[in-house]
Amino acid sequence: MAPKALDYESLNENVKKTQYAVRGELYLRASELQKEGKKIIFTNVGNPHALGQKPLSFPRQVVALCQAPFLLDDPNVGLLFPADAIARAKHYLAMTSGGLGAYSDSRGIPGIRKEVAEFIGRRDGYPSDPELIFLTDGASKGVMQMLNTIIRGPGDGVLVPVPQYPLYSAAITLFGGTLVPYYLEETANWGLDVHDLRRSVAQARANGTTVRAMVIINPGNPTGQCLSASNLKEILTFCYQENLVLLGDEVYQQNIYQDERPFISSRKVLMDMGLPISKEVQLISFHTVSKGYWGECGQRGGYFEMTNIPPESVDEIYKVASISLSPNVPAQIFMGLMVNPPKPGDISYDQFVRESKGILESLRRRARLMTDGFNSCRNVICNFTEAYWEMKDQKRVFHLRTTILPAEEDMPAIMDSFKKFNDDFMAQYEDYGGYSRM
Amino acid sequence: MAPKALDYESLNENVKKTQYAVRGELYLRASELQKEGKKIIFTNVGNPHALGQKPLSFPRQVVALCQAPFLLDDPNVGLLFPADAIARAKHYLAMTSGGLGAYSDSRGIPGIRKEVAEFIGRRDGYPSDPELIFLTDGASKGVMQMLNTIIRGPGDGVLVPVPQYPLYSAAITLFGGTLVPYYLEETANWGLDVHDLRRSVAQARANGTTVRAMVIINPGNPTGQCLSASNLKEILTFCYQENLVLLGDEVYQQNIYQDERPFISSRKVLMDMGLPISKEVQLISFHTVSKGYWGECGQRGGYFEMTNIPPESVDEIYKVASISLSPNVPAQIFMGLMVNPPKPGDISYDQFVRESKGILESLRRRARLMTDGFNSCRNVICNFTEAYWEMKDQKRVFHLRTTILPAEEDMPAIMDSFKKFNDDFMAQYEDYGGYSRM
Repeated sequence: MAPKALDYESLNENVKKTQYAVRGELYLRASELQKEGKKIIFTNVGNPHALGQKPLSFPRQVVALCQAPFLLDDPNVGLLFPADAIARAKHYLAMTSGGLGAYSDSRGIPGIRKEVAEFIGRRDGYPSDPELIFLTDGASKGVMQMLNTIIRGPGDGVLVPVPQYPLYSAAITLFGGTLVPYYLEETANWGLDVHDLRRSVAQARANGTTVRAMVIINPGNPTGQCLSASNLKEILTFCYQENLVLLGDEVYQQNIYQDERPFISSRKVLMDMGLPISKEVQLISFHTVSKGYWGECGQRGGYFEMTNIPPESVDEIYKVASISLSPNVPAQIFMGLMVNPPKPGDISYDQFVRESKGILESLRRRARLMTDGFNSCRNVICNFTEAYWEMKDQKRVFHLRTTILPAEEDMPAIMDSFKKFNDDFMAQYEDYGGYSRM
Repeated sequence: MAPKALDYESLNENVKKTQYAVRGELYLRASELQKEGKKIIFTNVGNPHALGQKPLSFPRQVVALCQAPFLLDDPNVGLLFPADAIARAKHYLAMTSGGLGAYSDSRGIPGIRKEVAEFIGRRDGYPSDPELIFLTDGASKGVMQMLNTIIRGPGDGVLVPVPQYPLYSAAITLFGGTLVPYYLEETANWGLDVHDLRRSVAQARANGTTVRAMVIINPGNPTGQCLSASNLKEILTFCYQENLVLLGDEVYQQNIYQDERPFISSRKVLMDMGLPISKEVQLISFHTVSKGYWGECGQRGGYFEMTNIPPESVDEIYKVASISLSPNVPAQIFMGLMVNPPKPGDISYDQFVRESKGILESLRRRARLMTDGFNSCRNVICNFTEAYWEMKDQKRVFHLRTTILPAEEDMPAIMDSFKKFNDDFMAQYEDYGGYSRM
């Protein structure tokens, strides 16, 4: 009998070709060992709550009240919830059309998109239009939708940094496009060399690929750098000259561990550059509730903002978003809370600041513990991260990628165990060449 | 200058060709009128909470506690939450790896998939394997993933009922496949005539299309019928003979408004048929928390169950699910609660039954009010719905599709206003031919 449609040999080839290392072989093997009773500390994916990070109290109080709106009529509600959480729950419930159980507009709740626009305006110093902001089930879903909109077939290429976050390679393969790699410069703080970019594009064109878009991950994942304003300017000029859409993955904008190099959004730099470029370069910027001191990965909340995208294309993007009806509503409220947190004078302000600072400072200490731990290992070099994480295997030198998320008190033991493994391994194999950078 | 990648003319053609009527022109025009101050009652999409349906208390209490787990340590928690909701919140939190803020396994939380398997086992009388159940962000996301896995290119066809739910036509176009229509028999209670199916397949083949899958919506959307066991048997035999994957959209299985024709799952009928068919036909069944008396659309929770799918294909489906990391965790808990509601003897049992029966009985009355209302209109015929909704335009006779979800107390006024519009319209235009079926 002929193979069936869901037999392996007859699946969509793009599905089969897709690789997704974050949950690939190593992850599956570790899961098996965990089932057998081995203690496994997962550092393959940024999942801070899974490693003990506590959620921020205020947003959880607000969303709990939105889930159980009947509590708002209970005379005892004030015993369990502060007055500003109660007020904020009412504020968001009034924006929905029937609470958390009703589909919202497929772009997300208008009132929350307005709060996101105000946040962007404050951050960048340029107003943002809520009609060009779409809420999504996590940033990944937004990235996938945009890539699916851009990629028409195998002749379409997307520039992706190496090392990268594997969402990009996976989604480009799944949608049948071509990944065009460009290399980040480890010796230049993982910055981008525009000459190198030009070379990548020229080579792709020589192979018949139409390069249509460029991904940057800023702050870097896994490389941890914040791109400078001048580097971003070069990149935007390059996109202008080469007629590329820029996809700016900015999900780590809260995870900044050094003060010298702040996060600057691509949109701000684009606006700063003025005409004609500020009105020409097509830019999609992504953000999430999963990272930073929020770490609300499991809620699946995110947004993308569109700059210089013509209205008829925005309509098409809206239409496709409509097919899955609406992003989940609870996470939309988390996004509202993230861009509009408690303010000085609010009852919950002090607690909110204490909790968020505590998380960020602990992450900074853990980045330091890990850097020092790796640098104490035989044949290992590790640069301090400016922002999120870390590095991966590249030519000659071996790279290793890890999150810095294990609990702070576990960190010394983890680094000791890595050092022991590494140093034994090196003692046995270093003659075969190679050393590691972290 | 050449068009940019996100200019309309250079978008992915499949994106542009995709049609999604539920939120198409009529919806956009209605939204405009609403903005201008007109009262609009949206009956284009099943969004019951938006039309005043209250959420069930128990699941909302449980999920609220899971969102705010610190309440579980508060001595006052018992003043706002019943003991069984508290116990159930602990039950689900213990299944997560870090609460609602942590990504789960990309297939969903194992403990909840086990509860879903137990529900299916009780419903069908055949055990179900949790490893073959994947939780999703609403049923739509699961349907889209499966279609993307099956469709390899424009030569691949998927049988879709007419009238259908527009998710199917939209997703098939988006993924570059070919929709092969088959017509439901209005005169046979919207059942399927297998001769008709054969004709559709033969015609598609003559056009060079490889038909690989068949969608059934049971209970029907928008047609409202429950397929009989014998009709399902014919369909499964047809899929066996024609080597088709069956995609069984069973999201309306709770919305049954007559007792004579109960819902029977495709999987139960397949198992009842015995060997060889029960081990041969590839079947994917979909369910959701958005419909029935739950109506938790905004939470975006669903699952699909795979029957007779080889392990290496399941692995591929798992890999693609991993790219967007995990379905949202709060909705996974709603799914757990839906398949495992309060039991007799539980503190919340009586309230839960009262609330869910109240919703279902009101829906039944509204179906009756709407049927009678339409039948009182000039030149209009409306069959009573067995399950969910309604009908759409087809050859000669005009069809109209509507939900039965407006608040019960608004129903008489809505039907009066429709009757007035219809009868005036008919008085003016009936000579031009045609009458309506609802």
